[in-house]
Amino acid sequence: MSFAAVDVIAAKRDGGTLSDAQIDWVVDAYTRGVVADEQMSALAMAILLNGMTDAEVARWTAAMIASGERLDLSTVPRPTVDKHSTGGVGDKITLPLTPLVAACGAAVPQLSGRGLGHTGGTLDKLESIPGFRVALTNRQFLNQLRKVGAAVCAAGPGLAPADRKLYALRDVTGTVEAIPLIASSIMSKKIAEGTGALVLDVKVGSGAFMKSLDDARELARTMVALGGAHGVNTVALLTDMSTPLGRAVGHAIEVEESLEVLAGGGPSDVVELTLALAREMLACAGLSDVDPEAALADGRAMDSWRAMVKAQGGQPDAPLPQANEREVVRAEKAGYVTSVDAMAIGVTAWRLGAGRARKEDPVSATAGVVLHRKPGERVKAGDVLFELRADDAARIPAALEAARGAVRVGRAAPAPVPLVIDRIAPVAGRGRRKR
Amino acid sequence: MSFAAVDVIAAKRDGGTLSDAQIDWVVDAYTRGVVADEQMSALAMAILLNGMTDAEVARWTAAMIASGERLDLSTVPRPTVDKHSTGGVGDKITLPLTPLVAACGAAVPQLSGRGLGHTGGTLDKLESIPGFRVALTNRQFLNQLRKVGAAVCAAGPGLAPADRKLYALRDVTGTVEAIPLIASSIMSKKIAEGTGALVLDVKVGSGAFMKSLDDARELARTMVALGGAHGVNTVALLTDMSTPLGRAVGHAIEVEESLEVLAGGGPSDVVELTLALAREMLACAGLSDVDPEAALADGRAMDSWRAMVKAQGGQPDAPLPQANEREVVRAEKAGYVTSVDAMAIGVTAWRLGAGRARKEDPVSATAGVVLHRKPGERVKAGDVLFELRADDAARIPAALEAARGAVRVGRAAPAPVPLVIDRIAPVAGRGRRKR
Repeated sequence: MSFAAVDVIAAKRDGGTLSDAQIDWVVDAYTRGVVADEQMSALAMAILLNGMTDAEVARWTAAMIASGERLDLSTVPRPTVDKHSTGGVGDKITLPLTPLVAACGAAVPQLSGRGLGHTGGTLDKLESIPGFRVALTNRQFLNQLRKVGAAVCAAGPGLAPADRKLYALRDVTGTVEAIPLIASSIMSKKIAEGTGALVLDVKVGSGAFMKSLDDARELARTMVALGGAHGVNTVALLTDMSTPLGRAVGHAIEVEESLEVLAGGGPSDVVELTLALAREMLACAGLSDVDPEAALADGRAMDSWRAMVKAQGGQPDAPLPQANEREVVRAEKAGYVTSVDAMAIGVTAWRLGAGRARKEDPVSATAGVVLHRKPGERVKAGDVLFELRADDAARIPAALEAARGAVRVGRAAPAPVPLVIDRIAPVAGRGRRKR
Repeated sequence: MSFAAVDVIAAKRDGGTLSDAQIDWVVDAYTRGVVADEQMSALAMAILLNGMTDAEVARWTAAMIASGERLDLSTVPRPTVDKHSTGGVGDKITLPLTPLVAACGAAVPQLSGRGLGHTGGTLDKLESIPGFRVALTNRQFLNQLRKVGAAVCAAGPGLAPADRKLYALRDVTGTVEAIPLIASSIMSKKIAEGTGALVLDVKVGSGAFMKSLDDARELARTMVALGGAHGVNTVALLTDMSTPLGRAVGHAIEVEESLEVLAGGGPSDVVELTLALAREMLACAGLSDVDPEAALADGRAMDSWRAMVKAQGGQPDAPLPQANEREVVRAEKAGYVTSVDAMAIGVTAWRLGAGRARKEDPVSATAGVVLHRKPGERVKAGDVLFELRADDAARIPAALEAARGAVRVGRAAPAPVPLVIDRIAPVAGRGRRKR
């Protein structure tokens, strides 16, 4: 069936519901270049402002999956379960989590992305490990899942090409923030990658793309429903992103922090979230009786990490690169750290060279911010609050500017903020029924 | 000043008001190709759905005018006044009106357009006159206004090029219907053409682009305010477009009907609207004491028409082209015509060859519909209701299909519908104060 693009745009513009045939046609025609970029961007803006029903989002996601290949992981001899985070500052959780869950008996098929804007990307972090390759063929990916149970690599061009094209368009047309489009973008890639189950970490707060709890909850609800509709058992945690996760925000320094966690130590918030997500993933994979805390404590998670790094060409024992330039910022008065603004720290790390403005920009492996104090911790006047690291001293002044006021010190310790805010599970009997 | 296009789009997307600097930048950058089509179409959709304040529309219009040249008509030795219609079916009013108003002492600088969709274009109608040239240089246009006082021609490429580019984009992205964009598109061209005063004929009803009276009133109010803000004394009439104007819908046949009006006859609705608009134009031009009815009756308007046609290379005495193919539709029962649907008749004429689907399509000069009966008129069974004309008999069946049910016959005569529904004048003391 064929439609006029203008009629499809007008239907959504006027608050209507797109038919299955209209959605299938417009996504396919856009992928083939029959619907032009200027038509799709007008449609994306209409979707952003007028919304989509759950049925429309499900069909849109199905059409994006159908634009490319869908991996078949049925030859992997373990239950498969993946995790996706909507992106935050200092969010290195994939690094300890993937080998941990693999050590507990599941296989984790992690297709990850690179950082854009103030948030870091898992692939950039892993590339700070000497030798690590993030590009795997489908066959390599599958073999590694069979043998090691964990693989973190870039999505190939064959997976949801409609999403790849649409994402680039949304980025330049002010239409990134549409919940139906965010949900379908994430879920089309995850469903196409072939995972049997999925745990979503939906961030909310100053350092997240979703600033309000209502939006985050709506996004989580939409994605959990989408997973269910496509036979992927999906659960979401809403987690706080007003403060960076852990003490390191960068690439090599986040790998270092992840290694501390895999060695049984590390910052308490990183450990807490890694375990919370591991438990959800294991439950989704039918392995609820395995204890991930034990696998961290007894070194099995670290063994799994080393096997994964080696399988992807990395040298787990090679020293990580270190920054040439360091600058510390000290407390002006004594008291308690009351807040560390995730967005400001993200922008600071970005200015130091850890982030990119365009997809093709290189990043510095060593640049970033190390937080010496986190909310609730006591400081004396003159104590180091945080440390900036960069390859290039010229980047320091603008970074200091971005960091101004990011860490606040007050007289009283703040009330503790829960890290896991809520859990969104499939509506009873719906998610699994369609499998 | 320079902005990121995404920030401008996001401001309107989030319901904000664009600053003068943002509007100036985005219109200029779009004209120069710095802002891409897909960015402008997303912005256009955000404007359509979130609206613009009067101040934003005024600035947007000013930016579109500033994208090109503005004609200087100060050497024309008469007051200048123009008319613009938002487009209807059978709307040939420009043809008798322009020479009539010139005959009454004003000069009428009519830059017109071609038909698109179901509505006819003035330039297409005039081109059915043997020899008539619609392309004039600025110098020819100015000379003709000085000597004849009337010129109807195509707008040159130097006038509001931003609008030309944006209009083509809106046409393919479902963003034609945005009132701020319609108003700024019309008014930027009319203000750039240099007219001193302007009368707008805003159509409302099935055959118009504005289907609801509220939308038509809002469009009229916006344009009247825009004219005032730019020192062009502007008044609007809201007129009915549920029924075609006159009895002829096509090109050569509408010229014929216009000649009847210029000869002192013609259909009463065409005469009524021509005189109503002429009186408004003469009042705006400071010539309220001239009687246009007398100028129709005593042949001065016809003399003015002949002078204008000759000045543009046309032969006023040459026979107009006639269609080869004719087909009549007759009444099945006796009664009164209760309605003639303007949209259906417009689509019928379009299918007969009078209209175009794309800007570059040719049109048939002779194709169209002749209405033998109009609402309120009595019919006997077997009387001709209307007649289809075409160059190509193959076009008749699809046209008959479009015309089905367009003319309705009932037992009782319908209540008469007023042709002029309302008049929108500048808010007291505002329109003129800025001159």
